Amino acid sequence: MSAATLATPNTDNEPMTVVGGGLVGSLLALYLARHGHTVQVFERRPDPRSSESLEGRSINLALSDRGWRALQGIGVEEAVREVAIPLYRRVMHDQRGQLTMQPYGHAEQAIYSVSRAGLNKRLLDLVDQEPRVEVLFNQQCRRVDLRSRTLEMFDAAAGNSQVHTYRHLFGTDGAYSSVRAAMQKTDRFNYSQQYLNYGYKELTIAAGPNNSWAIEKNALHIWPRGQYMMIALPNLDGSFNCTLFFPYEGPNSFETLLTPAQVRGFFEEVFPDAVPLMPELEQEFFENPTSSLVTVRCYPWSVADEVLLLGDASHAIVPFYGQGMNAGFEDCTILQELMTRHGDNWLTIFQEFQQQRKPNADAMADLAVYNFEEMRDRVADPRFLLQKKIESKISAQYPQQWLPLYSQVTFSHLPYAEAWANGQAQERIMQRIMPHIQTEADFELPEVQALIAQELAHRE
Amino acid sequence: MSAATLATPNTDNEPMTVVGGGLVGSLLALYLARHGHTVQVFERRPDPRSSESLEGRSINLALSDRGWRALQGIGVEEAVREVAIPLYRRVMHDQRGQLTMQPYGHAEQAIYSVSRAGLNKRLLDLVDQEPRVEVLFNQQCRRVDLRSRTLEMFDAAAGNSQVHTYRHLFGTDGAYSSVRAAMQKTDRFNYSQQYLNYGYKELTIAAGPNNSWAIEKNALHIWPRGQYMMIALPNLDGSFNCTLFFPYEGPNSFETLLTPAQVRGFFEEVFPDAVPLMPELEQEFFENPTSSLVTVRCYPWSVADEVLLLGDASHAIVPFYGQGMNAGFEDCTILQELMTRHGDNWLTIFQEFQQQRKPNADAMADLAVYNFEEMRDRVADPRFLLQKKIESKISAQYPQQWLPLYSQVTFSHLPYAEAWANGQAQERIMQRIMPHIQTEADFELPEVQALIAQELAHRE
Repeated sequence: MSAATLATPNTDNEPMTVVGGGLVGSLLALYLARHGHTVQVFERRPDPRSSESLEGRSINLALSDRGWRALQGIGVEEAVREVAIPLYRRVMHDQRGQLTMQPYGHAEQAIYSVSRAGLNKRLLDLVDQEPRVEVLFNQQCRRVDLRSRTLEMFDAAAGNSQVHTYRHLFGTDGAYSSVRAAMQKTDRFNYSQQYLNYGYKELTIAAGPNNSWAIEKNALHIWPRGQYMMIALPNLDGSFNCTLFFPYEGPNSFETLLTPAQVRGFFEEVFPDAVPLMPELEQEFFENPTSSLVTVRCYPWSVADEVLLLGDASHAIVPFYGQGMNAGFEDCTILQELMTRHGDNWLTIFQEFQQQRKPNADAMADLAVYNFEEMRDRVADPRFLLQKKIESKISAQYPQQWLPLYSQVTFSHLPYAEAWANGQAQERIMQRIMPHIQTEADFELPEVQALIAQELAHRE
Repeated sequence: MSAATLATPNTDNEPMTVVGGGLVGSLLALYLARHGHTVQVFERRPDPRSSESLEGRSINLALSDRGWRALQGIGVEEAVREVAIPLYRRVMHDQRGQLTMQPYGHAEQAIYSVSRAGLNKRLLDLVDQEPRVEVLFNQQCRRVDLRSRTLEMFDAAAGNSQVHTYRHLFGTDGAYSSVRAAMQKTDRFNYSQQYLNYGYKELTIAAGPNNSWAIEKNALHIWPRGQYMMIALPNLDGSFNCTLFFPYEGPNSFETLLTPAQVRGFFEEVFPDAVPLMPELEQEFFENPTSSLVTVRCYPWSVADEVLLLGDASHAIVPFYGQGMNAGFEDCTILQELMTRHGDNWLTIFQEFQQQRKPNADAMADLAVYNFEEMRDRVADPRFLLQKKIESKISAQYPQQWLPLYSQVTFSHLPYAEAWANGQAQERIMQRIMPHIQTEADFELPEVQALIAQELAHRE
């Protein structure tokens, strides 16, 4: 054993403990194993690949560049791409069924619709091939004792509890994390959970004949209605998962749609082109739960070199930017960089991780709420769509100086906090440019060109 | 039984349950009893009047008008006044021991230094005289089950747990409330706990000969030092409770004062006039805990007509405005008004209580943090003190139109949110007036008088 390895604790023989075997937990386990660690993963639910699994309903996930990079790091990118559907643009449906389009980026840039359950199963298959990782299912975390470094796990199948000790514990147990709940009771732990006054309801657009798609397959569909909206993402079988984001209370809200007739009447009025494609509308509306939308922030994310929170456990966000999973996956990328740099110096790894990552998680939380307003309201405004076209022209003309905010978040690896700051600065510039522009062609006007050049000169 | 009482559920025979028998809990129990309800109070600690009680250290409390009104409502105001010390002004101690003064209000207006333990004992004595109220001590709340409406209480003296059912539960169990913790796990419960980067340490200025006061008795003493401060409040025995508010980390912080010599050296440098009066300084510094400073916000404060949070359980604030207890006592005043208005209609009472009280609690939380900056920094600035003198002259000249912010918070019953909004508007006016003023006498200048008249005309 060299002096260098003696200087930092040698934890090669200490198993890593991961609480939560969802998307981020299983990806993290793979990264830890690739770094030579043995890993024990405790997952509350049954194995999603087993017959006892009841798949929870969920918004389809939108994989984008940050997520792909993390998947690439463990060599699973191509396999996932095979079952992912690229979405190149937003398609907006107005109240008369008229469509408008907004590309997400360049012609070849897309976000990818994937099934949460499918992705989770694929990651677990990979985990099974990794001899260093053991996954225990049906393990409900009843108690985390940070002082004695123990976990009490209730085995739902066996009907009994076992106490496990840990040396390094990773909490990837989601927005309602048990690991974080234990940390919340420690002194000086900052914490907040804030709910939107909106809930969401999962609905379905049925597949067309021969598993064809009844509306454009390679797009994210939005029915923006100002104070509420519906969206739809395609599935491989021709159907679409729709989600209605709707106020809990108020004039148009879950509390006013109480009968099948009210639901049908309301949908026919505001989503007339979608209703004929939704044969199970009323049944789904009343059988599916109304789910809430929470933002969780906390700090610190670590306890000494003993505990670290990742993913939704430390930064749960609302789903409107499609970045929840991507941000959690990027956590794994960042952690793997720090493991490479700092070896087994977990104190340094955990400290640097939280210091680097916290401002980006906060920015992403703000961006997600911001994008809700954009999707439910602003995308219905022709002036907003014109502004996006002008922005994309500026970006084409000045590619080194201007990347639209959406592209910075979705198609780059720029830290979220930088993307958000850049995006706000660019928005202020657009507020000064747009009064001079009435049509797309006005972009070529000499005074507009001069104004843009002047604004961009100021940025340097 | 009249038709009117039949219209609302008759809960006369349903005992009220109060978790937490501290200041707000015992006052609340008295108010509930005066309204004809029987009340069972569970308190975690032993009876503070018994020999087994270990009195916790605490900042002395500053009772002001909102607190007095609540005590008056149960007829205990005069008895408490007998053991309260009026403080008519702030006395600032600079680094050379020079003093400056700032009155709190008019000559006869004061805040009152009282002992938390003494006040709690007096309220419990009153509770004992109230046959409708039963207080059970040593009852640690282990679990609140909101669905089955049960409490699991661990009796520390008996060493066993008992399950109690409740019909109407009041959570007055403080900043780390168990009742709130149960509510936090329910859907759509907004919650945040935010810590300052400052801790506090209790210290003592000893009594002079024959229980005399070594520094001015009827004042709140402040040693403002920009990034930190010490304060002192008088006790009846001639001593003062001092509190050092100090950063946890950084150049001058708890992490840099590690030895008795470092503590003495630092105090002699920055609090030179206080050190000779603090014979136990080093011992107290290392024996007394360093305590943290948290702001807790949450919403809703109620569950149906079943549970209501009051006091620190729903709105814990930092102590710098001396309003924590006063705000909790004002909760009792507001609740008693709503009980008078709505009888046994607890759903309405709880709804109106939280809707009316939440914005005021939020404003008070902001005011408390604001006053920390004022006390540790701004009160050392001669321009700030001059501004306060000018404000007091404006208030004397225009008593109907101008009440200083501190007086609105401390010597009025104006809702906190209104006080805070008025105070901010007045501060903006002062920012426009002060550039014209160099000395107190400048207040009489015709152009200053004209400016003030003009500003106040705008306010109407």
